Amino acid sequence: MSRQSKTVLVPGGQGWVGQRFVRHLEERGMNPLPLSRREVDYTQSKLLKEVIKDTGASFLINCAGYTGKPNVDACELHKAECLEGNAVLPGVIREVCEDLGLPWGHVSSGCIYSGNGPDGLGFRESDLPNFSFRQGPCSFYSGTKALGEEILEGADRCFIWRLRIPFDNLDFPRNYLSKVLTYHRLLEARNSLSHLDEFVKAACDGWVNEVEFGVYNLTNPGSITTSRVVELARKHLPTDKEFSFFDSEEQFLKEAAKTPRSNCVLNTDKAREAGLVMRPVEEAVIDSFKNWRSAG
Amino acid sequence: MSRQSKTVLVPGGQGWVGQRFVRHLEERGMNPLPLSRREVDYTQSKLLKEVIKDTGASFLINCAGYTGKPNVDACELHKAECLEGNAVLPGVIREVCEDLGLPWGHVSSGCIYSGNGPDGLGFRESDLPNFSFRQGPCSFYSGTKALGEEILEGADRCFIWRLRIPFDNLDFPRNYLSKVLTYHRLLEARNSLSHLDEFVKAACDGWVNEVEFGVYNLTNPGSITTSRVVELARKHLPTDKEFSFFDSEEQFLKEAAKTPRSNCVLNTDKAREAGLVMRPVEEAVIDSFKNWRSAG
Repeated sequence: MSRQSKTVLVPGGQGWVGQRFVRHLEERGMNPLPLSRREVDYTQSKLLKEVIKDTGASFLINCAGYTGKPNVDACELHKAECLEGNAVLPGVIREVCEDLGLPWGHVSSGCIYSGNGPDGLGFRESDLPNFSFRQGPCSFYSGTKALGEEILEGADRCFIWRLRIPFDNLDFPRNYLSKVLTYHRLLEARNSLSHLDEFVKAACDGWVNEVEFGVYNLTNPGSITTSRVVELARKHLPTDKEFSFFDSEEQFLKEAAKTPRSNCVLNTDKAREAGLVMRPVEEAVIDSFKNWRSAG
Repeated sequence: MSRQSKTVLVPGGQGWVGQRFVRHLEERGMNPLPLSRREVDYTQSKLLKEVIKDTGASFLINCAGYTGKPNVDACELHKAECLEGNAVLPGVIREVCEDLGLPWGHVSSGCIYSGNGPDGLGFRESDLPNFSFRQGPCSFYSGTKALGEEILEGADRCFIWRLRIPFDNLDFPRNYLSKVLTYHRLLEARNSLSHLDEFVKAACDGWVNEVEFGVYNLTNPGSITTSRVVELARKHLPTDKEFSFFDSEEQFLKEAAKTPRSNCVLNTDKAREAGLVMRPVEEAVIDSFKNWRSAG
């Protein structure tokens, strides 16, 4: 990105996360090319290879994936698509990029874990997924994301950036804070979260600053509970919403969900040591509420 | 197959198993159309839908899948392809067939189990896989086959035919009996096996005779150990090969394999009750050795 061509291919660049990468790259003076599958079917290795060659791209950021709309429950109904988007596609991109010697980054997810990690300090990049097909239970979505990482094991010149419950100050259905503010009832849980713009900047910093390739947990340091997010919303937003919680995860699963959710804390030591710094999670959440506005 | 058009589409119809379906359907007076992915990329639902409509097919038999050459170890190196062929593709075919109301059959595998089943009488169709990503350990191949079955759960008008260690009297690298005769060392294990032509006939009988859609274990009734197969070879073939065995599965895995193998016994009561009869496994093995000849 610093050297050679300024062109960066962004499969999935028209999506919520992808658009942020595109904007951020533009702000850095790069030439991002968002690819939508309708224009170029990048799941076909031949077509992907052609577009990389034709554009002379020096980097690729895979923002494509199947997340399920309105939420992860939809993945239980669209298993083949979910598996293709989250596990097969990274493998196709890996093969093409290795073939061409192109470095690249993959937007993965922290949802492949459940809990606070073996020592209570959050899951490290070296911990095996424990909310996956191989170590269940898991949602189908999490299973496919973990398989996607497995398929990228040992990949050449590849970043795996783990995003986790993205949020920012722009009210939007996929923003975690918007969900907290609109869901009828909430599930109390402790999680690490990623401020979306900070995630994108940290990922790109890693490439520009030539940190070692590999897996990085890119969440805001620390963790936060749902009830603390509600407290901060009450304090910093003009809201008179009456927040209501499920009695238990069992009740949530029984009444409101088809599949279990990952709730987990990630350890961000590796990212910090590589210089990929994000604000403490509570600071980022407060700042988002203080600057809360419509995404439109 | 008995009614309407005589045309049956056979994705993967150029492969070892697929060719047998094609020949068998011809012998039954049907009009099988083998599809190779090079001619028609049937992994693209739009193209698959077109070819079904254009040909007026009344049935489809999915023989496509990724098995790994020369053996299942290759799947550990080609995970994305393996996942696409064995799990995503069945989901794509399901969606297209349900959309068009087309009945179809999927060649699955018994390799999603390990052992003799909960009651020692072999795994029944209702038993959950225990050699899969969700219930490991497993090979990557078995993991993808089990995911393929999961993706077909609840599919309309769909047969899932479980093939298991195919063999017959024609010497060929994929024939289990050929492997026993050529491998340098053998692993002692008890398995159910499928005589390939009997498998194909049982599968087609099920469709023609309108048995209930769903999962069927199509193995020759009973089970057989590797050493018994060797005894039968010695008895019925002119061979002076010195057969040698690994001391243990641990030794086999350490010295000769990258990934564990499924060894398992399947229960064939459901198939038999549906009238899908295959010969007892020892009878079919003896008959194959007695008629042993080159496949060429």
